[in-house]
Amino acid sequence: MVAMSQRRWIADARASLLVGEDVRLGDIDPESTPGYDGNKREGRRDLFAGAEQLGDYQERLYAAAEGGGAEDAVLLVLQGMDTSGKGGIVRHVIGAVDPQGVDLAAFKAPTEEELAHDFLWRVERRVPGAGRIGVFDRSHYEDVLIGRVRRLAPEEEIERRYGAIREFEERLAAGGTRIVKVMLHISPEHQRERLQNRLERPDKHWKYHPSDVDERLLWDDYQRAYEVAIARTSTPAAPWFVVPADRRWYARLAVQALLLETLEDIDPQWPAADYDIEAEKARLAAT
Amino acid sequence: MVAMSQRRWIADARASLLVGEDVRLGDIDPESTPGYDGNKREGRRDLFAGAEQLGDYQERLYAAAEGGGAEDAVLLVLQGMDTSGKGGIVRHVIGAVDPQGVDLAAFKAPTEEELAHDFLWRVERRVPGAGRIGVFDRSHYEDVLIGRVRRLAPEEEIERRYGAIREFEERLAAGGTRIVKVMLHISPEHQRERLQNRLERPDKHWKYHPSDVDERLLWDDYQRAYEVAIARTSTPAAPWFVVPADRRWYARLAVQALLLETLEDIDPQWPAADYDIEAEKARLAAT
Repeated sequence: MVAMSQRRWIADARASLLVGEDVRLGDIDPESTPGYDGNKREGRRDLFAGAEQLGDYQERLYAAAEGGGAEDAVLLVLQGMDTSGKGGIVRHVIGAVDPQGVDLAAFKAPTEEELAHDFLWRVERRVPGAGRIGVFDRSHYEDVLIGRVRRLAPEEEIERRYGAIREFEERLAAGGTRIVKVMLHISPEHQRERLQNRLERPDKHWKYHPSDVDERLLWDDYQRAYEVAIARTSTPAAPWFVVPADRRWYARLAVQALLLETLEDIDPQWPAADYDIEAEKARLAAT
Repeated sequence: MVAMSQRRWIADARASLLVGEDVRLGDIDPESTPGYDGNKREGRRDLFAGAEQLGDYQERLYAAAEGGGAEDAVLLVLQGMDTSGKGGIVRHVIGAVDPQGVDLAAFKAPTEEELAHDFLWRVERRVPGAGRIGVFDRSHYEDVLIGRVRRLAPEEEIERRYGAIREFEERLAAGGTRIVKVMLHISPEHQRERLQNRLERPDKHWKYHPSDVDERLLWDDYQRAYEVAIARTSTPAAPWFVVPADRRWYARLAVQALLLETLEDIDPQWPAADYDIEAEKARLAAT
């Protein structure tokens, strides 16, 4: 179902962006805007309208769990190369929602304590509870992306992880969590521009690390690692979406649409009162 | 210093709202708008302008810690009776800031595990790290508020807690955390209206609990418990501010102003690059 508040979608965002076993990133144009028939200006207007609808859904989702015992939750997994715009999604899409209903987890290089556990340990601790929208800014997928490219674990261990991830995500889904996995897909030219921008602006210098260029030199290896990870972990319970992200406005709009469509599916309802409304009105009036 | 982006303040919000040992809540009009010379419409405009400035400060605060090793952090402690508008502050003041820089902790009735520890245990785990804005929606103060009113602990233990809180907060402050403690001050008439509203609107029924009226019947005890807590824990390192909150627009504006003035004091700076900018430009261009 097309997100109603975003008027310029001509197709379901999920159908337009879904990938699977046969994904070829090279065949997806990072400048394209699949399913959307508007320009940047219209996209911004739709993002604004969609934010209100997303906020409304979030409040219902929360209320349905809090007051009605519903177990639905949403987990957005954000992956992408450096400068692909993960932070912008968090700020502009998630940031428009009441922070009381959002659990945001940014996964950086694991600590010593985290390394002493299975790779899913730190992730398990941050999954959203019922009624909440969880966001992973990077995730357990790093363990099969940089893990694979940088050979941080033996090959058999990397192989084992794809299966462990599938089982982990299927368990979450069975518990009521809708998982939306997004790879923000940018071109290497776009990344160069963004990194140059960070080097040119004193207020952006802190965002640049010399290691960014080291990682950039392994671009093709990372693209391949993404293709393998997507192929091995695309399931009906936890599908992957590749979102072209050279146009930031589109990427934000598309992720918002994926969330809206997911929440439309859940269709959370205001829970009924579990007390006697008229009796409470009388008690209150007497105070 | 008056928050520059909020044009209608005629006095520093901190000076206008600061209370101390001799606080008398009965002498503070919940409908008043101390220090502010605008109406609701102007207040909304100022809140909008202030949000942009707050977002800018938050990013600098974060960058200064991330890239420059600064240890400054901010902790906003929100207290107030039911329906005093804590949730609205989180949504409309904190919600305007990039969620990546905010640590929000809502403290509800303690769990069994939490009760098995000292009352500060669960709070200590949620204090903001360097560069972050922490928000406590309710806090360790519940342990000397409902704790006192409902006699959940012996009198000596309640007495001990005031001192423990002072020491805890002084330690945080010594580590670089600016603590801003806010009591949202409403009238009992205002609360009745808000609770009535929750009983009248089906989309608000889930927010109402019959226990809200039970607590309401202890209004005067709670006011007294607040006065004692404020008197016993007002320190230069962790001052208390009483914010009149019958006018929601003013309460939001005032809390934003308190944060802006605190961040103006910190005056966080973009950190200098810790790498050779020209060398990195050359490396990047070669990729």
